[in-house]
Amino acid sequence: MIAWCQVVRYLSTAIADDSLENAVALKDLEVFERNEEGIETAIGILKQRFGEKLKTSQALREQHCHTTTYIPGQLPDAVVFAGSSEDVQETVRVCAEHHVPVIPFGTGTSLEGGVNAPAGGISIDLNEMNAILSVNDEDLDVTVQAGVTREALNEHLRDTGLFFPIDPGANASLGGMAATRASGTNAVRYGTMRENVISLTAVMPDGRIVKTGNRARKSSAGYDLTRLLVGSEGTLGIITELTVRLFGIPEAMSAAICSFPTVEAACNTTILAMQSGLPMARIELLDAETVKAVNEYSNLSYPVSPLLMLEFHGSENGVKEQAELFGAIADEFGGSGFDWVTKTEDRNRMWKARHDVYWATTAQDKSRRGLSTDVCVPISRLAECVTQTQADIAEAGLYGPVVGHVGDGNFHALIMVDENDPAEVERAETVMEKLAMRALAMEGTCTGEHGIGQGKRRFIRLEHGAGADVMAALKIAIDPRNIMNPGKVLGLGD
Amino acid sequence: MIAWCQVVRYLSTAIADDSLENAVALKDLEVFERNEEGIETAIGILKQRFGEKLKTSQALREQHCHTTTYIPGQLPDAVVFAGSSEDVQETVRVCAEHHVPVIPFGTGTSLEGGVNAPAGGISIDLNEMNAILSVNDEDLDVTVQAGVTREALNEHLRDTGLFFPIDPGANASLGGMAATRASGTNAVRYGTMRENVISLTAVMPDGRIVKTGNRARKSSAGYDLTRLLVGSEGTLGIITELTVRLFGIPEAMSAAICSFPTVEAACNTTILAMQSGLPMARIELLDAETVKAVNEYSNLSYPVSPLLMLEFHGSENGVKEQAELFGAIADEFGGSGFDWVTKTEDRNRMWKARHDVYWATTAQDKSRRGLSTDVCVPISRLAECVTQTQADIAEAGLYGPVVGHVGDGNFHALIMVDENDPAEVERAETVMEKLAMRALAMEGTCTGEHGIGQGKRRFIRLEHGAGADVMAALKIAIDPRNIMNPGKVLGLGD
Repeated sequence: MIAWCQVVRYLSTAIADDSLENAVALKDLEVFERNEEGIETAIGILKQRFGEKLKTSQALREQHCHTTTYIPGQLPDAVVFAGSSEDVQETVRVCAEHHVPVIPFGTGTSLEGGVNAPAGGISIDLNEMNAILSVNDEDLDVTVQAGVTREALNEHLRDTGLFFPIDPGANASLGGMAATRASGTNAVRYGTMRENVISLTAVMPDGRIVKTGNRARKSSAGYDLTRLLVGSEGTLGIITELTVRLFGIPEAMSAAICSFPTVEAACNTTILAMQSGLPMARIELLDAETVKAVNEYSNLSYPVSPLLMLEFHGSENGVKEQAELFGAIADEFGGSGFDWVTKTEDRNRMWKARHDVYWATTAQDKSRRGLSTDVCVPISRLAECVTQTQADIAEAGLYGPVVGHVGDGNFHALIMVDENDPAEVERAETVMEKLAMRALAMEGTCTGEHGIGQGKRRFIRLEHGAGADVMAALKIAIDPRNIMNPGKVLGLGD
Repeated sequence: MIAWCQVVRYLSTAIADDSLENAVALKDLEVFERNEEGIETAIGILKQRFGEKLKTSQALREQHCHTTTYIPGQLPDAVVFAGSSEDVQETVRVCAEHHVPVIPFGTGTSLEGGVNAPAGGISIDLNEMNAILSVNDEDLDVTVQAGVTREALNEHLRDTGLFFPIDPGANASLGGMAATRASGTNAVRYGTMRENVISLTAVMPDGRIVKTGNRARKSSAGYDLTRLLVGSEGTLGIITELTVRLFGIPEAMSAAICSFPTVEAACNTTILAMQSGLPMARIELLDAETVKAVNEYSNLSYPVSPLLMLEFHGSENGVKEQAELFGAIADEFGGSGFDWVTKTEDRNRMWKARHDVYWATTAQDKSRRGLSTDVCVPISRLAECVTQTQADIAEAGLYGPVVGHVGDGNFHALIMVDENDPAEVERAETVMEKLAMRALAMEGTCTGEHGIGQGKRRFIRLEHGAGADVMAALKIAIDPRNIMNPGKVLGLGD
């Protein structure tokens, strides 16, 4: 257990010798023990305050640590359904007073155990905070409560001619997407949550509400608290509202597919397209295994060979020009079957097939569970990283298709594992470990968009070196008692 | 003087009652008194280490606090010409040990007193760190030392087909541009330093060297230390190397001008162009006063009326299509004289005239000095903000043209002031104060790209509220003795 008196000692030591080195080590941010008395007291107070909006049933608690992850669930002790920033504030204040963990919960689509409660505590469910507060069409921005999902937002925007582009696949909440710095298929054109959150409102660990910015498109006024909270996974504050960028729906959108003899040929095509300044809206790689699964699941008949799925946004002429240029580049690298998908229903069917890759893969073997992992590398290293990973998976005797947002150098392996076979689980974990280490060796990152959660904390020190100590110092400065989503992002360090 | 024992007290108090409120107030970050003994000792040690690379002459010290600013100079006690991250590290270590301020110096183009030394200390000149370390053309990135200027970088890239787009006007160093979160004329298309720094290397206040990331285009691995350092103006660490994004030089670039009856008409044209998804590369507003000055200075004959200078990047056809669509929109709002500038030399002449606005304005009245200030507001409020500011300037009996990066809602007022007339200086300061307050009232920011420096510290609390306390807590956690560029960004608080 890391007590607050210890924290003071770490900080005092740090200041006495002017060094972050002794400030706090990552392992000191490992989760503290359950504070039974505090939890009981906090639940009593919150029950009085929130009545039926606080739930303690086993089923609800299980649901609030269940995510699409291989990491075993760790239940919170209660769930508060917050309706406003003030509800979140009150909950945090009570928890802060009694040293009880708070874990924000959006749609539960975290892949790395982000909503687990390793020391118990209160899960704050933000789904009822689903109001769209203001659409500013002249400024191309919208302010929403954190529980609004990306699909709900785009449905709301339907008649405005505007859209919110970021699409991580799951119909995640915008608050959760900001907290994990999510991205997805069209980040190559529109950026990630890092680029698209203009400002946000967060409840800090002491219960204060901080608004990190305004609606200006750019600012040089002080430290970038917006970007500090984006990607902090609820460990520095709970995002309750956010203002995000919108874009005009392009006059024309068209899609295309193109098969390649090798992953390398597909990657080289991608590199040259990016270098040529082609403003690709989406460029997705499916390896041959994935294509096979997708064909079966979505009743398609793509050639079973590495495939690029593409989308172009622009004017009618612009889109045509882009597609032609892309076709010429693909030709150079042996691309074949370049095929336009212009009809909206065909385009939707193609992207649905892409989004259903998880289900297509898991349908291949219903006795196993899919473990999804991601890395991101400089695009020049992508082909090498993908093919070495495919070899690792084969060598380990596992089935694990690879799909990638290749314009960004980001890809996923979805490894099927029998959770009741410890040896197989270990082989899968070894493959994932090798993948993360390979990405780091290639000047990449251990996760491009899934986040660290619990699953990848061991890589923080390896990826960031002394930067991990800076992160720990920031965490302690903002959350000295480590009540905000403890045991995530930091911890497990040397 | 804020001593380290006081800092410990603040932190201990903060932790004892779990609240940032008592952690540290902005005023406690006000600069400490000169530490004469420490400065003398540090200079002695550094002189031994750096020999001729350490200078203490009056002329050099003056040059290292001289910036394009109205804020009086405050000299450092010595200047170290660093040649490597290790030189910076050694200097910082010595200064940390003896509690001596360190002030990073790039090209000295700060507008808000960013390189002043209010409590003396060591200026670290990074100009000799001008190596371009690696160009990765496949990955569209380049790693440089902090002293490389944007013009030197683009000169180096000349034969690669790639370019670095960010252009704040001055030929600033990339380290300085990152430190102030700079942007400029084509941020509307390519983003600011916030979006274009992929990762960086910084010497932290305890002398440790931290690399904040790798070369992956995106990452969800931990807190965003890159974005924390970008815009921190040397108060959290000294940037010594950085990796930035590059872009393929577009197949076609063309420029255009268009006059408008009012600033409002020009702004409304801009809004509609942005909503239509026109990928403008540059869209600059010059008010009538500016056009008049530019005509005289650059020997041009633009109609003396609000003017938009535009640039389009893309394919030959794409650029033509963009310009036509823009022309149609401008027509709707009474735009006239829409004129293509396709020849490279004409385009260069036009942008040179835009970049020379400062000189054109100051040439109007050689007895006065130009005070440049900037704000950024949501674009829907831009016309109102500009016209009210023009009225303020006129009412104060001052001459102050307005120019703006209007696609971002960012604009500058360049107010001419007789520095020997205290009443006039006060009137100018009142106008600048009103401008910043107006921007905040319009959900904007007190500075879009110039930074806070010394000049705008009083607005940090007004703009960020409780966020200012979070910033102070971060500063103290990372730089507990406040040796990194003290008296900048934070301080002067309530």
